[in-house]
Amino acid sequence: MAYDNDNIFAKIMRDEIPSHRVYEDDAAIAFMDVMPQGMGHTLVVPKVPSRNLLDADPSIFDGVMRVVQKVAKAAKEAFDADGVAIMQFNEAASGQSVFHLHFHVIPRFEGIPLKPHTGEMEKPGVLSANAEKIRAALAR
Amino acid sequence: MAYDNDNIFAKIMRDEIPSHRVYEDDAAIAFMDVMPQGMGHTLVVPKVPSRNLLDADPSIFDGVMRVVQKVAKAAKEAFDADGVAIMQFNEAASGQSVFHLHFHVIPRFEGIPLKPHTGEMEKPGVLSANAEKIRAALAR
Repeated sequence: MAYDNDNIFAKIMRDEIPSHRVYEDDAAIAFMDVMPQGMGHTLVVPKVPSRNLLDADPSIFDGVMRVVQKVAKAAKEAFDADGVAIMQFNEAASGQSVFHLHFHVIPRFEGIPLKPHTGEMEKPGVLSANAEKIRAALAR
Repeated sequence: MAYDNDNIFAKIMRDEIPSHRVYEDDAAIAFMDVMPQGMGHTLVVPKVPSRNLLDADPSIFDGVMRVVQKVAKAAKEAFDADGVAIMQFNEAASGQSVFHLHFHVIPRFEGIPLKPHTGEMEKPGVLSANAEKIRAALAR
C-alpha cells in the first residue's frame, strides 16, 4: 500500500492541524497523543515519510530513536513515572490507526494499567499542561 | 541501578544458556521469546549492554533498529501475519522483567488478541520450528 500524504500526522507536521508539540529536530517531531492510554502519552514521528516500520528507510532510525529516548527520559521525569513503555504498531491488525510511522512513549506507574483505546479525547487543557511538563523536563 | 552482567540475556549472548536464535550480526542478536505472547514472538537484543532504553548509548540505535526491522519483516512473512507489533519496556512498572535492553517483535493476526504474560513456557519443538521459519524468511 502507498503512503498517503494526507494522513493526520503528515498534516500535523505541516501545521495544517494543531498539536501539543513537545519537541522537534531535523529527524522527528514529538507531540501529545490526543487519546492517551496513560498520563503523558506522547508520540514520536519521523519527518521522512513511511507507512510504518516495514517500509521505513533504515537511515532514519538513528535520528528518530534518539528522539524516542530523549522523550522517554523526559516524560518519565516529568510525571515521576515508575517506568515507560515504547510501542510501535505496524498495520491495523497490530493496532496501527494512522499510517505514518510513529512510536508511542507511555509513562507507566506501579499498579495503574494502560487505558484501552476508547477513542475518547483528552481535554485540551490537560494535554497542554502535560506537554509543558515534558518540555520543561527536556529543557533541564 | 547498575547493569547486571549475569542477566539471562547476557548469558544467552555468551552462549551460557541455549536459545532459539534466528539472527546475529555485530549490533544485535535475535531469538525466540520462550514465553510468547503470540505465534512467532521474537526478541531483538543489542550486544552493547544497557539496562534498558533509558541508559542506552545512542550509538547503538542504528544497528539494533535495522535488526528489529529485518526481524519484523521476516516474522510477518514467515507466519503470513496481518501486522507486527514492536514493544520495548523500561523498568518493572512497564513490564520489563529482564534488565538488558530488548525489543519485542510480535506478529499480529486479525481477531487474535495477544496472550497475557502467564509465565507459561512454549514447547521447545514449537520454538525451534518457528525459529526455522523466521530464519528461512530472513534468507529469502
